[in-house]
Amino acid sequence: MDRYYLKLALRIAERSRGICSPNPFVGALIVKDGKIISEGSTQPYGYDHAEIVALKAAGEHAYGASLYVTLEPCCHFGMTPPCTEAIIKAGIKRVVIGIEDPNPKVAGKGIQTLRNAGIEVSVGFFEEEIKEQLEYYLCFILKKRPFIIWKSALSLDGKYAASDGSSRWISNLASRQYVHKIRSQVDVVLAGVKSVNDDDALLNARLAGNLKQPLRLVLDPHLDIKLNSRLVTSAHSYPTMIMYHEDNHTKLKQLESAGVRLHKIYGQKDELALTAVIDEIYKMNFYSVLLEAGNRLSESFWELGLVDKCFIFYGNKILGGDKGVLSNFDRQNIDRAIILKKIRVERLHDNVLISGYPSISQS
Amino acid sequence: MDRYYLKLALRIAERSRGICSPNPFVGALIVKDGKIISEGSTQPYGYDHAEIVALKAAGEHAYGASLYVTLEPCCHFGMTPPCTEAIIKAGIKRVVIGIEDPNPKVAGKGIQTLRNAGIEVSVGFFEEEIKEQLEYYLCFILKKRPFIIWKSALSLDGKYAASDGSSRWISNLASRQYVHKIRSQVDVVLAGVKSVNDDDALLNARLAGNLKQPLRLVLDPHLDIKLNSRLVTSAHSYPTMIMYHEDNHTKLKQLESAGVRLHKIYGQKDELALTAVIDEIYKMNFYSVLLEAGNRLSESFWELGLVDKCFIFYGNKILGGDKGVLSNFDRQNIDRAIILKKIRVERLHDNVLISGYPSISQS
Repeated sequence: MDRYYLKLALRIAERSRGICSPNPFVGALIVKDGKIISEGSTQPYGYDHAEIVALKAAGEHAYGASLYVTLEPCCHFGMTPPCTEAIIKAGIKRVVIGIEDPNPKVAGKGIQTLRNAGIEVSVGFFEEEIKEQLEYYLCFILKKRPFIIWKSALSLDGKYAASDGSSRWISNLASRQYVHKIRSQVDVVLAGVKSVNDDDALLNARLAGNLKQPLRLVLDPHLDIKLNSRLVTSAHSYPTMIMYHEDNHTKLKQLESAGVRLHKIYGQKDELALTAVIDEIYKMNFYSVLLEAGNRLSESFWELGLVDKCFIFYGNKILGGDKGVLSNFDRQNIDRAIILKKIRVERLHDNVLISGYPSISQS
Repeated sequence: MDRYYLKLALRIAERSRGICSPNPFVGALIVKDGKIISEGSTQPYGYDHAEIVALKAAGEHAYGASLYVTLEPCCHFGMTPPCTEAIIKAGIKRVVIGIEDPNPKVAGKGIQTLRNAGIEVSVGFFEEEIKEQLEYYLCFILKKRPFIIWKSALSLDGKYAASDGSSRWISNLASRQYVHKIRSQVDVVLAGVKSVNDDDALLNARLAGNLKQPLRLVLDPHLDIKLNSRLVTSAHSYPTMIMYHEDNHTKLKQLESAGVRLHKIYGQKDELALTAVIDEIYKMNFYSVLLEAGNRLSESFWELGLVDKCFIFYGNKILGGDKGVLSNFDRQNIDRAIILKKIRVERLHDNVLISGYPSISQS
């Protein structure tokens, strides 16, 4: 039954996907005498963790019960008191944990604290699933940078636009809706100023009933963004930030009064240092970034090995022409190809989505 | 029940796919007193049509029975006597036909002949399915040219090779097996001399138990093919033809003695006139061609609108570089994109096959 309850905890965790960064979204379940008496998932940053939600819902019934939780409970004071303390206080008899939390502040110490209090602890269930579920958080903790997702909409022949630059729309409505869903689950949507100016993109998450909006981050070395762009004019409604390196006092003031947050970053000429950009995002406690970059900026992220996952949408179009995607990200020989691990294929009406985790080919 | 028996006839027809060109592969079924008493599918060119196979198997039991057949029975002397005559002679009472045969020698006259003999005839079942099943034949009859299939193996980013030219293998074993299946079902596999010389491709159908081999046709304007290529050295075992335009008596004799058939075609410099090539294939009574052409030759077929169906295999590789497929087949604007009708998506392990019928976009 342990596996059954933990599988349920994984599903409960999904309710908090995208809402609690930089905390991992965790699911918890309290079971007593073979009955589920309460459940909980991580609340937004600064609010209750999953275990606390479940414990509060169970009240005094938690005494003598078992707790199932996808990630090792925390044992340190962060924005909230340690979960281990609450678990012990509630009289939980047994704790079943999916995976250890690699966060150095926890890293087995949560488990040890529970065991020291006489609680029976089992660890190691659905490790692969949970590691994938918490991939943003685990990257953030282990690599000390946000998890970076590249998305691209291509024609069947691998072009990101027709030769005259037209690209609306290569992909269909279902594909574009899917992108809005991804946007609603990440912390940051990143684009270059060129594509924002050219496409007048809003970059927000337009989904019925969606409340969570990502930070819209534009890399704009010389502050070239159009003041009348939809992105700037909507900056009071949706979180918006521009990273730049060349000062322009007037434009800076205009953007600030439009509601845009500004952040100076090291850069040279027409480029910002991307590693500095990613480091700043990390320091802002954001653990996931969706790249909605044009081809050139995309190539730079690929060159730096800064793509953790990719979503490629194939529209039902053959375009021909010279706008082949990633042409400058030249792997030279087939033995040096990037392959996608855990590749997934989804059909979206007449479009196809292929996603996976880029990895150096082993062939 | 008519639809049920005709659906069965469609399946029976599949047994003869690829073996009877330029005849359509047809399925037939004889039913008497609610029982199937015999069935048949078209035999190789010059041998029995489906109806005759079924009638022979039924013998005298055909008297008073119903015949189900996917295509209108022929009423003319071709390589074999008219089927209508045999149907009337056997005493068939009712004939249920999928679609009319647009071949001008038949075109409703088969149906009329049967009706004139007092046989009840119903026509028009599964028209869309049968038209797709017989797409090679229908193109041959209606467009007076073979049906042309383009296949391509691409990386996920739409490259047909890495920048150094290496392309073995972009697609996986399952994809390559699929190509062998297509080869076994077409009359002609067409390639340019460059890809034959570069890849030393055999271009035959290597499938367990497969007996039918396509004609391997190489476009080789100046007779540049290597005499020691696997294609030439296997020409006594597998049908092989070279089309050229520039005479070279010595090479010609060498190729002929290796078993290669040679065919002079109009051409200029490094190119043969593709419409002349296709017309010659038509005159040879071949109704289907699989293009296994390199990128440049492929682009020429696309430019001429000579692609009736395409199979694009996406290998699990990202290659980058300048080898983007169909770059010179430039549609310029997204509104001029080619779209695929009846698009199909199949997953072949970590590869994806997208196929369909190219059509001018209506967007």
